[in-house]
Amino acid sequence: MIPRYSRPEMAAIWEPETRFRIWFEIEAHATDALAELGVVPKSAAKALWDWWATNPAIDVAAIDAIEAVTKHDVIAFLTWVSENVGDEARFMHQGMTSSDVLDTCLAVQLARASDILLADLDRLLDVLKRRALEHKLTPTIGRSHGIHAEPVTFGLKLVEAYAEFARCRKRMAAAREEIATCAISGAVGTFANIDPRVEAHVAGKLGLAVEPVSTQVIPRDRHAMFFATLGVIASSIERLATEVRHLQRTEVLEAEEYFSPGQKGSSAMPHKRNPVLTENLTGLARMVRGYVTPALENVALWHERDISHSSVERYIGPDATITLDFALQRLTGVIDKLLVYPERMGKNLDRMGGLVHSQRVLLALTQAGVSREDSYRLVQRNAMKVWESDGALSLLDLLKADPEVTAALSPQELEEKFDLGYHLKHVDTIFARVFGD
Amino acid sequence: MIPRYSRPEMAAIWEPETRFRIWFEIEAHATDALAELGVVPKSAAKALWDWWATNPAIDVAAIDAIEAVTKHDVIAFLTWVSENVGDEARFMHQGMTSSDVLDTCLAVQLARASDILLADLDRLLDVLKRRALEHKLTPTIGRSHGIHAEPVTFGLKLVEAYAEFARCRKRMAAAREEIATCAISGAVGTFANIDPRVEAHVAGKLGLAVEPVSTQVIPRDRHAMFFATLGVIASSIERLATEVRHLQRTEVLEAEEYFSPGQKGSSAMPHKRNPVLTENLTGLARMVRGYVTPALENVALWHERDISHSSVERYIGPDATITLDFALQRLTGVIDKLLVYPERMGKNLDRMGGLVHSQRVLLALTQAGVSREDSYRLVQRNAMKVWESDGALSLLDLLKADPEVTAALSPQELEEKFDLGYHLKHVDTIFARVFGD
Amino acid sequence: MIPRYSRPEMAAIWEPETRFRIWFEIEAHATDALAELGVVPKSAAKALWDWWATNPAIDVAAIDAIEAVTKHDVIAFLTWVSENVGDEARFMHQGMTSSDVLDTCLAVQLARASDILLADLDRLLDVLKRRALEHKLTPTIGRSHGIHAEPVTFGLKLVEAYAEFARCRKRMAAAREEIATCAISGAVGTFANIDPRVEAHVAGKLGLAVEPVSTQVIPRDRHAMFFATLGVIASSIERLATEVRHLQRTEVLEAEEYFSPGQKGSSAMPHKRNPVLTENLTGLARMVRGYVTPALENVALWHERDISHSSVERYIGPDATITLDFALQRLTGVIDKLLVYPERMGKNLDRMGGLVHSQRVLLALTQAGVSREDSYRLVQRNAMKVWESDGALSLLDLLKADPEVTAALSPQELEEKFDLGYHLKHVDTIFARVFGD
Amino acid sequence: MIPRYSRPEMAAIWEPETRFRIWFEIEAHATDALAELGVVPKSAAKALWDWWATNPAIDVAAIDAIEAVTKHDVIAFLTWVSENVGDEARFMHQGMTSSDVLDTCLAVQLARASDILLADLDRLLDVLKRRALEHKLTPTIGRSHGIHAEPVTFGLKLVEAYAEFARCRKRMAAAREEIATCAISGAVGTFANIDPRVEAHVAGKLGLAVEPVSTQVIPRDRHAMFFATLGVIASSIERLATEVRHLQRTEVLEAEEYFSPGQKGSSAMPHKRNPVLTENLTGLARMVRGYVTPALENVALWHERDISHSSVERYIGPDATITLDFALQRLTGVIDKLLVYPERMGKNLDRMGGLVHSQRVLLALTQAGVSREDSYRLVQRNAMKVWESDGALSLLDLLKADPEVTAALSPQELEEKFDLGYHLKHVDTIFARVFGD
Repeated sequence: MIPRYSRPEMAAIWEPETRFRIWFEIEAHATDALAELGVVPKSAAKALWDWWATNPAIDVAAIDAIEAVTKHDVIAFLTWVSENVGDEARFMHQGMTSSDVLDTCLAVQLARASDILLADLDRLLDVLKRRALEHKLTPTIGRSHGIHAEPVTFGLKLVEAYAEFARCRKRMAAAREEIATCAISGAVGTFANIDPRVEAHVAGKLGLAVEPVSTQVIPRDRHAMFFATLGVIASSIERLATEVRHLQRTEVLEAEEYFSPGQKGSSAMPHKRNPVLTENLTGLARMVRGYVTPALENVALWHERDISHSSVERYIGPDATITLDFALQRLTGVIDKLLVYPERMGKNLDRMGGLVHSQRVLLALTQAGVSREDSYRLVQRNAMKVWESDGALSLLDLLKADPEVTAALSPQELEEKFDLGYHLKHVDTIFARVFGD
Repeated sequence: MIPRYSRPEMAAIWEPETRFRIWFEIEAHATDALAELGVVPKSAAKALWDWWATNPAIDVAAIDAIEAVTKHDVIAFLTWVSENVGDEARFMHQGMTSSDVLDTCLAVQLARASDILLADLDRLLDVLKRRALEHKLTPTIGRSHGIHAEPVTFGLKLVEAYAEFARCRKRMAAAREEIATCAISGAVGTFANIDPRVEAHVAGKLGLAVEPVSTQVIPRDRHAMFFATLGVIASSIERLATEVRHLQRTEVLEAEEYFSPGQKGSSAMPHKRNPVLTENLTGLARMVRGYVTPALENVALWHERDISHSSVERYIGPDATITLDFALQRLTGVIDKLLVYPERMGKNLDRMGGLVHSQRVLLALTQAGVSREDSYRLVQRNAMKVWESDGALSLLDLLKADPEVTAALSPQELEEKFDLGYHLKHVDTIFARVFGD
Repeated sequence: MIPRYSRPEMAAIWEPETRFRIWFEIEAHATDALAELGVVPKSAAKALWDWWATNPAIDVAAIDAIEAVTKHDVIAFLTWVSENVGDEARFMHQGMTSSDVLDTCLAVQLARASDILLADLDRLLDVLKRRALEHKLTPTIGRSHGIHAEPVTFGLKLVEAYAEFARCRKRMAAAREEIATCAISGAVGTFANIDPRVEAHVAGKLGLAVEPVSTQVIPRDRHAMFFATLGVIASSIERLATEVRHLQRTEVLEAEEYFSPGQKGSSAMPHKRNPVLTENLTGLARMVRGYVTPALENVALWHERDISHSSVERYIGPDATITLDFALQRLTGVIDKLLVYPERMGKNLDRMGGLVHSQRVLLALTQAGVSREDSYRLVQRNAMKVWESDGALSLLDLLKADPEVTAALSPQELEEKFDLGYHLKHVDTIFARVFGD
Repeated sequence: MIPRYSRPEMAAIWEPETRFRIWFEIEAHATDALAELGVVPKSAAKALWDWWATNPAIDVAAIDAIEAVTKHDVIAFLTWVSENVGDEARFMHQGMTSSDVLDTCLAVQLARASDILLADLDRLLDVLKRRALEHKLTPTIGRSHGIHAEPVTFGLKLVEAYAEFARCRKRMAAAREEIATCAISGAVGTFANIDPRVEAHVAGKLGLAVEPVSTQVIPRDRHAMFFATLGVIASSIERLATEVRHLQRTEVLEAEEYFSPGQKGSSAMPHKRNPVLTENLTGLARMVRGYVTPALENVALWHERDISHSSVERYIGPDATITLDFALQRLTGVIDKLLVYPERMGKNLDRMGGLVHSQRVLLALTQAGVSREDSYRLVQRNAMKVWESDGALSLLDLLKADPEVTAALSPQELEEKFDLGYHLKHVDTIFARVFGD
């Protein structure tokens, strides 16, 4: 966890204190269920909750000190609780195994993290929608291979991002559903020493589903799917970040990250305004993606479990969720405040001497009866001249002066093919598809 | 694509001929729609389908030869079709861009591949269910950390695998749904030169959804999610394969891959019967996982598209689906014919001198009023003796001879704690959770 | 292996026939050594070489047919050789295990592949050097964050690439050295049934080092390092490819991939000249990188070996080397024929109204006694005006008109700070560092 | 950085204070060189070193507070130094760019980290050597595919690990050499505003090589190679850890991690002694491997640099080195104290009824004139009976009773083939190869 790429709300989920609080709740709810089943005295559950009602501080250092001796974190925690609650605490954890607590706790943490990420995505979607609508009809050049292709609008770029992050939101919701399960099934998942009704009770109290079949642990394919989903979302962040970085290039400059007054772009070059936020997002995306493979490697645990997954999750549980949360927030801020330059977009759109309309002319020639091959040849020979002039020549002018072209299309017909509105006529359709009517 | 790890049905999807057939269908359906809209003559569409009705052979070599000149695969294909269909073919591809064809074709291929993978998973689930029911109550030792823990049944191991692959099936179905979209939206996705109704028509004919907003291409987050899903499934394959490898170890030998009469395990050691199929599956899982990261890196294309994704997909499209298909089939065969040795399972279960029952004794002592710490100490000191004897001593005998123990539990009470049935009492519950009642 | 991304020389290394030829040589050399040691009759070795001298065709189909029965590739091969050589062949493979043949063969293949890759790198280095010298003093703008920074030369960009690929060459040579070892040590590496002198003899004949200690196999950390090295080289390819893609952008257009007369950039837009080769290289780099993780996962084989590495190597052995070979060749061609536009470079360099000289002014102000903070403020306030004018205003003019500036620097002193030569004065030094004097 | 997987010495390298100390040294040495060249007054350099000689505390919070305003870390640091040193500090950083400081600092940090890792590897090698010599002739079964193959010694397993980590050490030394370069070349690497002699001076003082050609930054292929090397080492750690995990399995139990008296293996099962350290190492290896891909993705920065690499390095710089350092130490401890059970090794070796000698019999039959195919058949039919008896039958006895066998080999000849010493006769040779004579 890197403090500068961390927001408090998400980081709090991964604090030791939070973990211990969740552990307590799991143990106390389980004790309730055990008491209800007559396995332990009801006084035991009451003693736990009574102490909890005093809102006791969690003494992380004390628990760590016990762990240093026992080398076992759950035993250390139980010992510390016993020291505080007293003799009744001995009924706690009856028939359970450490992983019942650890894995169910991780499920709670990942579910909470998912809720934050879903809220992040909602905010990003809101901002994308607002800015997409704002620039719905702001013309700009569409580029394939980095080369000018045909006109689009800046709003279209954002509606694409909206649709992509809407898919990400759906995937995140599915990932949350997959991960939010409770397992309290004992040492090898057989419920030998604990009734399945305890699991059902705790699951209900914590808002989790019951894990249908666990071993000692919740199966790690669930977690693999969870982190893979974060990796996909990170890649979508990288895509939008890359778009902004391109748009801010000196020669393009169609949009810019917001630049605050006190900010210095470079210790050496005072004029520089660099897309550092989106470059940063590109790097953060690499990290979140990098956590996918360890999560996949965690699936094949030996037999009923080995503990190799645990160290991996100590890293990627916090690191992947905190980083992705931060990145989504940062991206939302970038889009929210993005400086958009429609005038420059117009200038860039025109700079190729009308080449962006070449396909329309090609189609018109074909429709006027010229063979596809000839049409292609006619357009290309004029287009190449414009290209080589770096936009100084006008494709329309050249076409009007090409007798083979004018044999098929009149000057007026040619002029009609250079109309920008032609390209934007279905923008409404696309927006309606994504945002609804 | 490695022939030995390839099955014909899946490989056929990725043959050039298949691709060209799908291209033709896309183009011909699009021409139908264009004709319906009055953009091209109905005779053009008819000419295409008439030719197609003759069931023409696809001359891959001829198309490749044209591409060698044009350096553009779709143009090469269109040229070849024109040469065969004649003049009417010039109306084909009107207003479309290559990616309309390429990306929609890839969607068809991945959807077909998904269907095969779903069928593979169904077969695997069938086999897992059959063998799980067969061994529902076959006792075997459950192991955590590779160390004997408490009894489970062999059927439980398989029901866990069933539940895991049932999740994989659900993920695969979601991945199929994500990937099966049709984009015919022109050079930068604006439908400038092609009516959105063409896209809708082709989508309907091919069983695809309409891509709500495309650029020149279908957004690659869909494909990233697809290949990430395959990577998760591969990891689950590795898990079950690893289980079999462990069970076949000489010292364990609770199960074995089927060994055919003519098979030779080693050129040097004629007695060897090696788990080569599951070791192979472990390697294949690494490959399918390895394709996830390139797919994630493919998301951040520049602007309305760059073509960097294309070469990646030429590899991983076939390689990931063919390998996973093969691996699922191989795993199904392994489980189907797996030689299971219940007698050996029983032998292993008993070899630790009853240590597997230690927890039950611990609980009984606690319930009999001994403090948790004392109970733990009493059990551990006897357990350690058994452990050090390598199972020659019996835990039950030692406990019966320990006065501190017998002060709390009578010999008969102790004997009751060594009952195997105790551990299996909830197996029905678990099976019912997974398979239904 | 994708035919279109494959060159014959490298692909040939991975043909079954090549593999069988290497197997034969290993077996025959080993038989020589065994005969020399008196373990087998000299007539056995002679019989093998006599047959080999007839230059027999390798009947891959026949060997495959035998393998279909024995399910063991080396036994199948030995059987086929026996069928051809006759009774004397029974002395072949004495005391050896399959992996002795397989792993030593892989070492030969990877060493040969390394030699091709080293030659590829040499060709690339030659081309980079030639073009670097050609454009040693061609001024162009240096960019950080995609934003204009200060002048460099185009030759400097290429000399950087040269230095990077020279490092890659050194790494490749180290990787070759690591991988080129011979192990003929028997079933578990103890030489129980084969004298270490056999290994030494075969190693010498094949130009390999002796593997100091093997198990049944050559340890896979060697292969992991090999494929990791390919992944680093691929990443350097991506870097240079990305540079070209950026330079070819419509708004930048300082360089372009060579565009052959017959080539069509787009089925729809005849004017397009797209950097498709370097985009393709970007994708190929993703693939070669993607093979690194499976190679790393191959290291931790179980005990003296398991065979999980084998399937992985059947994919990545050919795929990584063939793809990297192709990519290096393609990159070499791109750089060799790259169309460079110095005029456009000059135009871009000037387009920011002299902002690229801002740092020099900043330094001059500091040296003239203005505090660092004030200098920064003075330069930035003028630089911002130029920036906002999109290069229409001139930084030099504004500075000359700023009394706080002219209080420290005279107009003539200011003009001196806008000299391009100032930035290029150490180009010779850098070239000498890389190419030598 | 996870505190529990972190050692103070390595963690200290990545503390903010350490970073600022290195920054200061770079700046002060550079100021020395600038003063020597007459660019800045010698008093400036003296002022810096005079202040430094007071051993000033680094006020990280104060620097962070300045960065919160300037949003630029190096400027914040320089400002803070100026506040402390006074007016003379304005000459500091003359002609330099932030990356000159940042990248050279990272080189120092990674070089220091390398030194720790090299020392870690040395300690591990020492321990491996000691234990290898201790168990040089401790017989144990060699296993391929997890199946008993032929005898080896436990020392051989360790000498293999020694050779592997000796290779890792060599790779680490190469990675250190690659990474330890100094770049002080200004905003785009042209030395426009700073003399190359400054770079040479600072490099010399810090024990770094001069980076022959930098852009604004040190090229990231160096870092990619560095982190890839760590990934390979991590994989070798996983291999040895996996070996220990296998050996500790209940059914094998040939070795065990040291188990301290107070340690509790399980909250539920007091008898459990789990290989938790090596399982943990398996997980840590996944993490270090997971950092390789982000490092590879960092290579292709845009033009003269973008800052996307920076966030990645903030994570993986500390995380990869700290984790690997911890893992190497932990592994060293595991091997150092590993409980080895030669008696159990002997018991396992014998449990297969002599099957491990089958190859020797096979060879003897061949040498006695039986055809290879017949020899194989004879050995296999007896071996299979032993196999199916789970070692209750003796291969030697069966062979003695098989007339086809005894027709070729006398009982005494057969007995000679079951001698363990036969398998160990070249152990000395192998040890000499690795450790020297």
